[in-house]
Amino acid sequence: MSDNYRMCLYGKENVKLEQGCPTPSPSYGEIQVRIHTVGICGTDIHMWQSGELGGAGIKFPIVMGHEATGSISCVGGGVTKLRVGDRVALEAIIACRQCHGCLSGKYNICQDRNILGTERNGFQQKFVVVPERNCHILPVSIPLDTGVLLEPLSVTVHACERGQVAIGDVVVISGSGSVGLLQMQTVKAAGAQVVYITDILPERLALAASLGADHTLDVSNMDSKEVARRVEKTLGKKADVTFECVGNDQSIATSIYATRSGGRVVIVGVPSGISRVPVDDAVLKEIDIITTLGYKDSFPKAISLLEQGKVKVAGLITDRYGLGDIDKAYRHVRSGAGIKSVMSLE
Amino acid sequence: MSDNYRMCLYGKENVKLEQGCPTPSPSYGEIQVRIHTVGICGTDIHMWQSGELGGAGIKFPIVMGHEATGSISCVGGGVTKLRVGDRVALEAIIACRQCHGCLSGKYNICQDRNILGTERNGFQQKFVVVPERNCHILPVSIPLDTGVLLEPLSVTVHACERGQVAIGDVVVISGSGSVGLLQMQTVKAAGAQVVYITDILPERLALAASLGADHTLDVSNMDSKEVARRVEKTLGKKADVTFECVGNDQSIATSIYATRSGGRVVIVGVPSGISRVPVDDAVLKEIDIITTLGYKDSFPKAISLLEQGKVKVAGLITDRYGLGDIDKAYRHVRSGAGIKSVMSLE
Amino acid sequence: MSDNYRMCLYGKENVKLEQGCPTPSPSYGEIQVRIHTVGICGTDIHMWQSGELGGAGIKFPIVMGHEATGSISCVGGGVTKLRVGDRVALEAIIACRQCHGCLSGKYNICQDRNILGTERNGFQQKFVVVPERNCHILPVSIPLDTGVLLEPLSVTVHACERGQVAIGDVVVISGSGSVGLLQMQTVKAAGAQVVYITDILPERLALAASLGADHTLDVSNMDSKEVARRVEKTLGKKADVTFECVGNDQSIATSIYATRSGGRVVIVGVPSGISRVPVDDAVLKEIDIITTLGYKDSFPKAISLLEQGKVKVAGLITDRYGLGDIDKAYRHVRSGAGIKSVMSLE
Amino acid sequence: MSDNYRMCLYGKENVKLEQGCPTPSPSYGEIQVRIHTVGICGTDIHMWQSGELGGAGIKFPIVMGHEATGSISCVGGGVTKLRVGDRVALEAIIACRQCHGCLSGKYNICQDRNILGTERNGFQQKFVVVPERNCHILPVSIPLDTGVLLEPLSVTVHACERGQVAIGDVVVISGSGSVGLLQMQTVKAAGAQVVYITDILPERLALAASLGADHTLDVSNMDSKEVARRVEKTLGKKADVTFECVGNDQSIATSIYATRSGGRVVIVGVPSGISRVPVDDAVLKEIDIITTLGYKDSFPKAISLLEQGKVKVAGLITDRYGLGDIDKAYRHVRSGAGIKSVMSLE
Repeated sequence: MSDNYRMCLYGKENVKLEQGCPTPSPSYGEIQVRIHTVGICGTDIHMWQSGELGGAGIKFPIVMGHEATGSISCVGGGVTKLRVGDRVALEAIIACRQCHGCLSGKYNICQDRNILGTERNGFQQKFVVVPERNCHILPVSIPLDTGVLLEPLSVTVHACERGQVAIGDVVVISGSGSVGLLQMQTVKAAGAQVVYITDILPERLALAASLGADHTLDVSNMDSKEVARRVEKTLGKKADVTFECVGNDQSIATSIYATRSGGRVVIVGVPSGISRVPVDDAVLKEIDIITTLGYKDSFPKAISLLEQGKVKVAGLITDRYGLGDIDKAYRHVRSGAGIKSVMSLE
Repeated sequence: MSDNYRMCLYGKENVKLEQGCPTPSPSYGEIQVRIHTVGICGTDIHMWQSGELGGAGIKFPIVMGHEATGSISCVGGGVTKLRVGDRVALEAIIACRQCHGCLSGKYNICQDRNILGTERNGFQQKFVVVPERNCHILPVSIPLDTGVLLEPLSVTVHACERGQVAIGDVVVISGSGSVGLLQMQTVKAAGAQVVYITDILPERLALAASLGADHTLDVSNMDSKEVARRVEKTLGKKADVTFECVGNDQSIATSIYATRSGGRVVIVGVPSGISRVPVDDAVLKEIDIITTLGYKDSFPKAISLLEQGKVKVAGLITDRYGLGDIDKAYRHVRSGAGIKSVMSLE
Repeated sequence: MSDNYRMCLYGKENVKLEQGCPTPSPSYGEIQVRIHTVGICGTDIHMWQSGELGGAGIKFPIVMGHEATGSISCVGGGVTKLRVGDRVALEAIIACRQCHGCLSGKYNICQDRNILGTERNGFQQKFVVVPERNCHILPVSIPLDTGVLLEPLSVTVHACERGQVAIGDVVVISGSGSVGLLQMQTVKAAGAQVVYITDILPERLALAASLGADHTLDVSNMDSKEVARRVEKTLGKKADVTFECVGNDQSIATSIYATRSGGRVVIVGVPSGISRVPVDDAVLKEIDIITTLGYKDSFPKAISLLEQGKVKVAGLITDRYGLGDIDKAYRHVRSGAGIKSVMSLE
Repeated sequence: MSDNYRMCLYGKENVKLEQGCPTPSPSYGEIQVRIHTVGICGTDIHMWQSGELGGAGIKFPIVMGHEATGSISCVGGGVTKLRVGDRVALEAIIACRQCHGCLSGKYNICQDRNILGTERNGFQQKFVVVPERNCHILPVSIPLDTGVLLEPLSVTVHACERGQVAIGDVVVISGSGSVGLLQMQTVKAAGAQVVYITDILPERLALAASLGADHTLDVSNMDSKEVARRVEKTLGKKADVTFECVGNDQSIATSIYATRSGGRVVIVGVPSGISRVPVDDAVLKEIDIITTLGYKDSFPKAISLLEQGKVKVAGLITDRYGLGDIDKAYRHVRSGAGIKSVMSLE
């Protein structure tokens, strides 16, 4: 069959819709999914506008998209838990389950992993094939478009585990994009007592407040030390744990300055290249700087958080696009407007 | 009495011997120590040549010196465990034992701490007074001059705990100064299976090899990625834990590049100002960057390591100076020559 | 002044109201509190009916009571944060803050600790004097009688930290007394996904369900292995963490049998004497058996949980007694009826 | 081919040598090993004399033996790291590497694991077939008979990790059998400062002293509390970590009584049935009771400890038997005489 279609990135700012592509068939233990909605992430924009990723080149053409939901259209042999028609959210990490990393309980650091949408063709196509374990059934309470948020939510669940958030923690979140807003709610679900969140866009901070932030701060035109002073003044102390959810030097510095002696800074943003980091301040406070990479076994937890209402997503999906609007969508996301843009493939 | 004398730093490269100073008396719970030997540390050199510390100013004049041994010359009231004549090594951290940091089990992050020799007058004087708990009796097997190494050894014991070194770990040490050489032996005492150590001075590497290093590498004229490639090639894998014992950008980068996915980088060196750090590489391997500050309850462990012969110090003290040679001593240490220089106050 | 009165335990089932006792005065750093409400705990009943505690004798007479609220009636010198009239909940652990345990961050294992109400005179009196740090101001949303639940709630907050409950955990609670019901809500506040709770009294299980239990089981006439089978059948797996909240052999065994390989059993109940424990089953599953003792720095977290509505107490205080009803109250609690009985001292 | 022979256990005290058995052939990824030496372990004796294991029945007949070395006699397809003729030590745990336990980094709690020698036919036969990963090459410095100690040594390496032994720890070992003597050396290799070891056989304690024990105690006719008092008196404190290496009630109780507040008790012995445990004392000291099951990724570490001389085995193998002496060997081990008995299959 050749009724598949997909969005292909051919190079810098060069993305095209291809029709009549071959439809992939599921092998043993695999699932074919008819994609419904794909989320657009900062990583997509970075690849699209720079033509590279993490300093490394990209093998063009590539189909981007690593946040997606859809319906199962076909199941391979040996598949026992899922059926055609099941609504699912898709995990983008394909891990070998055999290397030292996988067998140490961390498939996110699999040495042979492939991230769909960045290293292998991803979800911006009508049909994809993934291993059964990459499909997570959506409960009826979670619509397909909301479901695309399960991928970034899984990132924040994993970061929360890495940061060992516990009851009573005072937490600072640097950055109120979709990841920051989800991180804020995730740490609350893990028992954080007070959450202080920052951004440079007032509308994001307003949304943060409506989703439960205890304190918000517009950090436009403020240097990192000044932000930290404000945070400490409001909270009466520095943060027990800070989540860096932007990925630039300023946010990393703010995160360190705002954290108390003996505290933890969790890097959730994805910095590119060499970062300028006040390691001296971290040393003086004996802070742990904890990096995070993707997620592992986090989707079921993310689904539960959504289903139980511990994480709310009202207002997070701000922009919806169709297949023909891809360039427009990317330009919109690059502008920093909105929170989460999604593309419908229906 | 005014038979005390001391070395006072009055500003940049301005240190003078003062005679006829008042001799401090021990209050309740305190000990007066007749100093015998003081070690000279990179921090001293930094203060002496720059006239500042950690970006902050220094209140001149200050008596430097935070590594020292001596004999107890007088005990205050309420002192029960120590007696006049006891040979002791001195801990330089004066902690309040009442703040949140102290009561959380980490007096090294005491909010009201004073570090003798950097924040308050230190050990480069004939007589000092410290709380009883800052004095640790030297066993007969440890001479007074060797004893000054207990302070840097305590730093490495603490770093080893922070890095959670365990049996079988493959460890890289970046830097073969006195701290690196002690760190190397400390991780072996904690069960490390293989230790790979680097430096830019062949004589230091030769000493490292004689003290038990499994692999050494002269990294002169090598960039961080190249060092990491060499390390991995020799070891057949990247390090489980890397200890950064230099404190500059190059060494921090090397430490990150040389560490395996899921591993730990422990910062033992003292970087000044903003560091350039490949956080992106750390993220791709989900590495923990663990900073360390001083030590806590580490002297007894350090003493035991020395006494049991698990750490050897032969060759570590390379240069000995008298009171009159202080400028010469500082210039020598600044030049990078030798490993550890000490000054005798006898 | 001698207008104090108190309930004194003189021996087995021998408790008397004493009037005209001297009123204690606060020393430097201390607070005098006019007690309002005292909770009655299983430990009180154990002391009252057996005349001993933990296999050790009791120094009679003793004033029991370690869960209490009241209003500050007098402040000693050096008290800066609290004022006369403040409504407070009282912490019953008096720790030295100087021993190895205290300085390791665990004042609950202070070697010189005194527990008010078991080792020293407690809260069943009109006026008590405690260190300032043992008083925690009640927010306006927490009434004085509800406030007595902050002590057992603190126990469960501490147990939750010890058990490292995290987002997504499947938790079993063995026992639905006041501690079990608070533990259930505390683990939910820490992110537990599903909580299964057991008891032998249907009315407690009904209350558990109303307070948020996902599954309840009446384990009357069921042996431990049978309970574990039922739990596993319902949950589809064994528990990640189990909290033992009864303190007898049956409950300890159930907790071990119901926990998955690699999981944790947290002992919150207070067993007396030698327990019969299926260590063999724990070994086959490599389970950690984690004991808990009191709390440390937990009251502020407990207050926050109550204030934010993450823990609900409606229905937990089932019985209220006056000063003259103490024998009746103890007999009632011993019978197992009700959840939490409190005594008013107003 | 049918030149295999093996020792079969047919029931209680009923073990027979069978000749002319079929020789197993290695499948893909498997190795056939010509067994050289098999160690006899307490578990073997338990199975032999009781006809059961862990309360569960045994499927007779079974070939026992889970500690063994030999030479590779044949390799299956896909084997790349090992060759015919290689001298190897054998790991007895066959794990699925696919279940939740395995993928969480703990293949020792694999839900589908088989332990060779207890659940499936073990090593008391001329030829066995195991997966490649179960074979660990012996360095030239380790003879084949000494190599059988790598299995119990791996148990103690794993227990040491579970107990998080670190530099400076004061450790008590309850029991000086082969496991206790190896545990003692393993904790020293992990940095333990002082080790106190107990037993009821003077000759074992003498061996312990010669292998590096700092203190030994003959606990014959002493109750657990008395042992703990003696230990504390000698050490000046209770243990930071205690390793229970016997597996009976007395030793478990001693381990708890001898451990300090906030310390850890590691269960290395294999208790059968319900144990009588002073949980009340553990609670009063908030002790963690950490169980251990087998080992995971421990053989390479054990091999390194032996090769580097950090663990010494001189005197540990006290008795050697041939194929025809199996009944005699079992009776000898049951009597408690000697330390480790081994059987040669050459």
